[in-house]
Amino acid sequence: MFKEMLENVRAKVPLIHNITNYVTVNDCANILLACGGSPIMSDDAGEVEEITAVCGGLNINIGTLNQRTIPAMLAAGRKANELGHPVVLDPVGAGASALRTETALKLMEEIRFSVIRGNISEIRTLASGHGTTKGVDADVADRITEENLEQAVAFAKAFARKTGSVAAVTGEIDIVADGDKAYCIRNGHRDMSRVTGTGCQLSAMTAAYVTANPDDRLTAAAAAVCAMGLCGEIARARMTPLDGNASYRNYIIDAVYNLTPECLERGARYEVR
Amino acid sequence: MFKEMLENVRAKVPLIHNITNYVTVNDCANILLACGGSPIMSDDAGEVEEITAVCGGLNINIGTLNQRTIPAMLAAGRKANELGHPVVLDPVGAGASALRTETALKLMEEIRFSVIRGNISEIRTLASGHGTTKGVDADVADRITEENLEQAVAFAKAFARKTGSVAAVTGEIDIVADGDKAYCIRNGHRDMSRVTGTGCQLSAMTAAYVTANPDDRLTAAAAAVCAMGLCGEIARARMTPLDGNASYRNYIIDAVYNLTPECLERGARYEVR
Amino acid sequence: MFKEMLENVRAKVPLIHNITNYVTVNDCANILLACGGSPIMSDDAGEVEEITAVCGGLNINIGTLNQRTIPAMLAAGRKANELGHPVVLDPVGAGASALRTETALKLMEEIRFSVIRGNISEIRTLASGHGTTKGVDADVADRITEENLEQAVAFAKAFARKTGSVAAVTGEIDIVADGDKAYCIRNGHRDMSRVTGTGCQLSAMTAAYVTANPDDRLTAAAAAVCAMGLCGEIARARMTPLDGNASYRNYIIDAVYNLTPECLERGARYEVR
Repeated sequence: MFKEMLENVRAKVPLIHNITNYVTVNDCANILLACGGSPIMSDDAGEVEEITAVCGGLNINIGTLNQRTIPAMLAAGRKANELGHPVVLDPVGAGASALRTETALKLMEEIRFSVIRGNISEIRTLASGHGTTKGVDADVADRITEENLEQAVAFAKAFARKTGSVAAVTGEIDIVADGDKAYCIRNGHRDMSRVTGTGCQLSAMTAAYVTANPDDRLTAAAAAVCAMGLCGEIARARMTPLDGNASYRNYIIDAVYNLTPECLERGARYEVR
Repeated sequence: MFKEMLENVRAKVPLIHNITNYVTVNDCANILLACGGSPIMSDDAGEVEEITAVCGGLNINIGTLNQRTIPAMLAAGRKANELGHPVVLDPVGAGASALRTETALKLMEEIRFSVIRGNISEIRTLASGHGTTKGVDADVADRITEENLEQAVAFAKAFARKTGSVAAVTGEIDIVADGDKAYCIRNGHRDMSRVTGTGCQLSAMTAAYVTANPDDRLTAAAAAVCAMGLCGEIARARMTPLDGNASYRNYIIDAVYNLTPECLERGARYEVR
Repeated sequence: MFKEMLENVRAKVPLIHNITNYVTVNDCANILLACGGSPIMSDDAGEVEEITAVCGGLNINIGTLNQRTIPAMLAAGRKANELGHPVVLDPVGAGASALRTETALKLMEEIRFSVIRGNISEIRTLASGHGTTKGVDADVADRITEENLEQAVAFAKAFARKTGSVAAVTGEIDIVADGDKAYCIRNGHRDMSRVTGTGCQLSAMTAAYVTANPDDRLTAAAAAVCAMGLCGEIARARMTPLDGNASYRNYIIDAVYNLTPECLERGARYEVR
């Protein structure tokens, strides 16, 4: 099932418009190329509507947001909605500042998102309208564990129902849910959190998967999350004692490049709740 | 002949001012260092004239252009012209939005470019004043092949004649032409298109080659194009089954770093038309 | 002694707010993760005070500064001072333009910096109020050598005394000094200058070391400088004939990731003057 999702990305080469932060943007571009998509980055209000119109999907990431790019996010998102293009939101750091929280909430008010992908602290912030995120990583107190998984699944489903978006809550265990159904995904490796921007990269890749599989965005998003985690595992296994997070970064993108649909199908570790 | 071009880059260490996009800027800086040049990035209108004055050449790349950086591109370009510094234009995505097309045309109106480097769709857009580029890659319909090479050469020469710039039209076959003479270059590997920013990197490197060889910008630009393609081949041969586009990116820059003038001379594959 | 400095970084995982250039920002984020810290990048005046408040330290780097980010640097720096957070300044390219020189001087006027890290040309510019830096590298005429080391140490101490900051002047020989004491450090490899942003990365890492060791910023800064140089040596030894500056970049960050406190203690090469 996940197999077809990746096959469609490879076959359709979805062109994804990214309005994203300048920290991890190069990795987002390379992972889009690696998975079989094609990236374009553009964040000026004077062109984002035209750019998004030539693309198949849109990825909005609020890391390093600023007064110039926020209006561009809104304009691009509205245009993408008008054209029926899938739109992904990555609310990086929501809860860490009022600007980030309010911008994310404003985007959710004005734009219909196909998928919202963040860590549990960010998604909690969006659900409650305020937050206490420390930086761009999830709060320890928020972490999804086997113990609180059931509540976390219920939370993700409720968030998905309320927003009309697929919720992709990533962490040690990832939850990808719509209002009715949740994938609990156990792919990935903890060292991925020591590579900057693996979350940003996943959001960009999710946009490619959802754009290439418009009729099943839940499965598409779950496949993207499994693919990223699985590639994190494959890349981790490749590391030598001299390798660190810089080589790990490269190996993850390399693994996405080499991932076959069959390997994804076989390697995906999830249960449906 | 290409040998001397690279020797001059290594000997003179040209300092290149880059106003470029935030997607591939780090790779542009590292490839400039790899080839023997030195990079400085600066895009604020309040300093670009001073910065370009301490440099030897200027590289203007309109990817992720915005209302703040466009005036800086114009100011830096005019200053570089006034000082007689070589200036390279990379019209990333010209044709994909009115802002990009118009900005590129405006830059060409106000600034004399030594070299304009883009894919065929971008250059066609500049030649005709409008375009239908899909994103940042060349349209399939536009591709230069053995069948339409003769027409493409004529087109590149006419564009060079009209603009007074060397035209570097890159793709499966690259054409580097002034009004009279064209190099048709067959170096490179198709997988280079799966690494983000190889075009941007080539433009930055071309600025270094042209700055170090001011009296022969046609040969200098052709040497840079051959060098990039040849390094793409060398890097591709180094790849193992686990490597993907992230490692390929690194290997290309590594190959530029290790490229000797003799290796460039021997490995360049071109004909003059 | 340096051993404890790194142990504290690993134990405390200092969260560092970075207002930095878009050229090397990804490497700054990854080196912060590699050394044991955690990065957040944010440069909008609308949020920098809040962001810096949730962090432990602040790193201000003026590469690719612009009219939008300069007020954010000032606001973040004042807030960090108010909260007693360590603040590092990297005056990239001070002396290369009036905007850079004046911005650096203005920042020094309004903000108390724990550490100012730059090459000798940049620091001379800050000391004298004007400069002739060519680009972002130190002028040849300025270089610190065995012959002029004594004067350079006296200069660094005087600069530290005058500014109240630890001066970290990096080059072939690095000097890290407060008003009374100077570490002369001989770690590092000359090829590090062919990787873009090793200075920026060091400044980010210095912020992590100083934040995790607030009571001994001189030793902490010296430990960070030794760590960077040592990792440059370790990474250089790992290079194969096909490797160039792109692989070297990755290997340096990998070495920082794998550096043990014991290895730092043993490998640090310095004298105190």
